[in-house]
Amino acid sequence: MHINNNYLNLKDSYLFATVANKVAAYKEANPDKKIIRLDIGDVTLPLCQAVVDAMKAASDEMGKKETFRGYAPYQGYDFIQNAVAGYYKNRQVDLDLTEIFVSDGAKSDIGNILDIFSADNQVLIPDPVYPVYVDTNIMAGRRTSYLDAKEENGFLPVPGPDTKGDIIYICSPNNPTGAVYNKIQLKAWVDFAVKNNAVILFDAAYEAFIDDAELPKSIYEIEGAKQCAIEFGSLSKTAGFTGTRCGYTIVPHELVSEGVSLNSLWLRRQSTKFNGSPYIIQRGAEAVFSPEGQRQTKENIAYYKENARLISQALDKMGIWYTGGQHSPYIWFKCPNNLGSWEFFDLLLDKAQLTGTPGEGFGANGKGFFRLTGFGSKEDVQEAVKRLAGIMSMM
Amino acid sequence: MHINNNYLNLKDSYLFATVANKVAAYKEANPDKKIIRLDIGDVTLPLCQAVVDAMKAASDEMGKKETFRGYAPYQGYDFIQNAVAGYYKNRQVDLDLTEIFVSDGAKSDIGNILDIFSADNQVLIPDPVYPVYVDTNIMAGRRTSYLDAKEENGFLPVPGPDTKGDIIYICSPNNPTGAVYNKIQLKAWVDFAVKNNAVILFDAAYEAFIDDAELPKSIYEIEGAKQCAIEFGSLSKTAGFTGTRCGYTIVPHELVSEGVSLNSLWLRRQSTKFNGSPYIIQRGAEAVFSPEGQRQTKENIAYYKENARLISQALDKMGIWYTGGQHSPYIWFKCPNNLGSWEFFDLLLDKAQLTGTPGEGFGANGKGFFRLTGFGSKEDVQEAVKRLAGIMSMM
Repeated sequence: MHINNNYLNLKDSYLFATVANKVAAYKEANPDKKIIRLDIGDVTLPLCQAVVDAMKAASDEMGKKETFRGYAPYQGYDFIQNAVAGYYKNRQVDLDLTEIFVSDGAKSDIGNILDIFSADNQVLIPDPVYPVYVDTNIMAGRRTSYLDAKEENGFLPVPGPDTKGDIIYICSPNNPTGAVYNKIQLKAWVDFAVKNNAVILFDAAYEAFIDDAELPKSIYEIEGAKQCAIEFGSLSKTAGFTGTRCGYTIVPHELVSEGVSLNSLWLRRQSTKFNGSPYIIQRGAEAVFSPEGQRQTKENIAYYKENARLISQALDKMGIWYTGGQHSPYIWFKCPNNLGSWEFFDLLLDKAQLTGTPGEGFGANGKGFFRLTGFGSKEDVQEAVKRLAGIMSMM
Repeated sequence: MHINNNYLNLKDSYLFATVANKVAAYKEANPDKKIIRLDIGDVTLPLCQAVVDAMKAASDEMGKKETFRGYAPYQGYDFIQNAVAGYYKNRQVDLDLTEIFVSDGAKSDIGNILDIFSADNQVLIPDPVYPVYVDTNIMAGRRTSYLDAKEENGFLPVPGPDTKGDIIYICSPNNPTGAVYNKIQLKAWVDFAVKNNAVILFDAAYEAFIDDAELPKSIYEIEGAKQCAIEFGSLSKTAGFTGTRCGYTIVPHELVSEGVSLNSLWLRRQSTKFNGSPYIIQRGAEAVFSPEGQRQTKENIAYYKENARLISQALDKMGIWYTGGQHSPYIWFKCPNNLGSWEFFDLLLDKAQLTGTPGEGFGANGKGFFRLTGFGSKEDVQEAVKRLAGIMSMM
């Protein structure tokens, strides 16, 4: 038996491990100092009550013979598909229920979707980037090239005359930069994809942080996108589902390549290698989209956004250039005094007991940049911006 | 962009759709007749109370800031890994916690595990077989060959002098035949795999139906198996989790190929394309392994087994040869009078308002065979065996 040798080409990521090790070492040496962590990419607020109540009711149903449910439909129950369709309808996007695939989360789907594409496609991935876009393609032995996201284009690259790619990753609002594409920029990508028979894999995990009707939450708000784009939605950051697991992937029927419907390929993949999302979780997810669930989850999003606003307000005062902070939980800024990402990390930890994530962990273009998140508590963020200002004033 | 053309080599399976269509047509034509369905492969008894209580408590935890949990460990929480390790310990199998990967079910893992193997492996699959073994390999473009399971070997093939294979599927107790390998037969496979550097993918989804200490529930009860086998466990049939979703995959550290640990490859795959099983579900799964959970779930298994026993007792009286029925929910028998699987299906539906699954839907060797399941209600099974006896007496 032979292993998949492509796995040997994967690079180990020491980013989060190194951050954790440095924090642990500092704590041991300075047990009396309080470290504020703005490096985390995980939510901290609990699930809202509407979701908890729905899951408890569903658990009870599963415990009674009359209401017990066995295997779920591969694409998810009608009730959650309808809820997702209704959510898209708010943005004037009409989806057929058979275009909506409910799953255990966007991360699984973003990895697994590659199954339906040939290994010989050229993959175009923005840099800096969420690491799994790269790794999942290396595992399949695909050629990947990078799309330069940088200060000059506001970390929002658009296609140019030399751009080439069959599979194109777009994440907006972006992780890690927090930058959000506008409709004109996104239209340029859709036009490029349609013209070149490329497919866009649109990661909308952070769409709930957008509250400007002019900024697209879904790529399907752009004309032509249904012919060229697959969209990944997630309740992880929207409703605190990182440990509860529910997402959805949209594969429009209009998306056809070489005469084959990608929707039918994905359905075949999912019905063969997946057995549906848990009924209880689907009921919890349904509750997210209820009026009460929307009100409660939006309160949580507003809390994280206020944290991000406090951080970006502080950066504004300091005159530091950044992206994100407004329609995103992330703030991405240039390290002061041309410090390297890790140099700045060490300085912040040592002098201010404050952590963030060094940008170079997300790719070459992240060198000299730094990510902070709004996922902590408001009290911590208030204290953190004071400490940050203190550090900056000394530089 | 090019699609994965291997998908075009998949055959559509009309097995369950055809069964459903025939049943629907009969119902429409005969609205007053009661059809008893023994074709289903899904559980019908509700989750036990210990599981329901655990999931409700976990839902409450997720709704409170102090006890909320975000991203779970990729391999599952310690508490469920410990519960699984304890379950194996009952059979004198020692597992390290890092050898246990908790997931959303065996079906996902059985499909996804192929990621870590090269496409050039020769795959050996028993016939008749659970269809996803074949389809997942076709998707990856692998060469598959079949292992003849037939009446002469009791549907339990063992390796012969001409047997060749790098990746070998074994399902015991078997779906669809209900046949169970003994230790001597399984040792022959382990020896073959070790000698030929092959890997065994051991599907133990139905192990909970075994209640004979001499019959292996786990392949690791066989000496040498940790060097050559990956095992897939599931709570679907064990504890009625078909719609709740939880399974576990064991990848021993001793399993090494070309100097690379398969455990490390699978960990890399799961940490890149999966984000853990829901905390709430993991708490429900933990409850399955508690003393109270074991007592309650064993009651349910006993209920299905009693149904299977009633069916096999009836076949014994009729002098019909079969496999399964004892350590399995499935009974697999030869259609009387050399009838074809579908001919017998039509006859049973028409004359006795009774359904089963035509064996040829599971592969060429299933031609002329038929599967009944014990997953219905006892009352239905009692009525079904009467109807079956009536039909047989007329033949």
